[in-house]
Amino acid sequence: MPPSPAPRVTPRRQATRDRVLEAASEVFAERGFHGASVEDICERAGFTRGAFYSNFSSKDDLVLELSTRHAQALVDRIRSAASRPEASPEDVLTDVFASLADEPLRKDRWLVLTTEFTLHAIRDAKARTAWAEQQRRIRDALIAVVDETVDQRGITLPMPTEIFVRAAMALANGSMTQQLVEPGSLDAGELERTVLPVLLGLG
Amino acid sequence: MPPSPAPRVTPRRQATRDRVLEAASEVFAERGFHGASVEDICERAGFTRGAFYSNFSSKDDLVLELSTRHAQALVDRIRSAASRPEASPEDVLTDVFASLADEPLRKDRWLVLTTEFTLHAIRDAKARTAWAEQQRRIRDALIAVVDETVDQRGITLPMPTEIFVRAAMALANGSMTQQLVEPGSLDAGELERTVLPVLLGLG
Repeated sequence: MPPSPAPRVTPRRQATRDRVLEAASEVFAERGFHGASVEDICERAGFTRGAFYSNFSSKDDLVLELSTRHAQALVDRIRSAASRPEASPEDVLTDVFASLADEPLRKDRWLVLTTEFTLHAIRDAKARTAWAEQQRRIRDALIAVVDETVDQRGITLPMPTEIFVRAAMALANGSMTQQLVEPGSLDAGELERTVLPVLLGLG
Repeated sequence: MPPSPAPRVTPRRQATRDRVLEAASEVFAERGFHGASVEDICERAGFTRGAFYSNFSSKDDLVLELSTRHAQALVDRIRSAASRPEASPEDVLTDVFASLADEPLRKDRWLVLTTEFTLHAIRDAKARTAWAEQQRRIRDALIAVVDETVDQRGITLPMPTEIFVRAAMALANGSMTQQLVEPGSLDAGELERTVLPVLLGLG
């Protein structure tokens, strides 16, 4: 995925950003996106508001940055799983699912936060523009890595790659939501493991 | 779908319930699930709180009843589309998509409301139990009508029907969400029209 417009980021600045994002992630999980204030996040991170605003323009900006990192980690995993040329598409999927199972950013937290932010974006034009742009960037990065992976293996998808990626994103969200609403009714990843091979034409 | 436990409902009582649900649907759309109070809904419907509570136990109850009606309408549409024995599975899908396009309950409103309620259910144990039970009922009703439709036509799905139904629900939600966040980036129903035939093994 194209990184966000890349300012020169010193290691010290990077460490500050990491600490704020980590604190934000915790506070969002505890209080929800709307319930968490910039003050709460600064207090948790041990930074002043000044330090916050020299790194991020708003609370929305934090979610966008967390989302960029989340998507980049996913793209890296797919690329790494696909890097062995002898790996079949099924092997690549199996590897990606296995690495997703160790997801460091807790997936239930992440689902709740992105769902809250999506509702916020539907109601707020500025957030919607930013979130739409972010979704497009994530999708483009995923389309590129999926195309690369299937091209290397001479596979033809039964649908445009963009539709496959949109469907995979919808499935991942829906699967996580169903697990949170009905714990135990569906094994983690079961929906994706069953459905994605069919969407890839491996069925 | 099995209707909710069926008390004897007189026409007058039914009319009251319909009016409250209609008012609730409007007020939820304007103020969000959390922003809408029972008082707001009573005022819009022109009923007293007494009339409200003799019909519904809570605001949550309204969403559950709206959801039952919404799901019943979908099941009826599938059953009606599948009722012509000469209709191919593709014809049934085309008919269902066409009738969904005339959806009377506005789909964008409905997506926002169910998304809000899902977040509420993830945080509130009582709502979660009710919403989980509701999701299971809806899924069971959809599984029954899909099984009926594919059995009549001698089709074997490439996955368990339950997984197909879960995937279809996730796709419908994801598609609507993507349309609301990125208006114009995806035609209404395009994701479902492209992906569902593949999931049904018609690809």
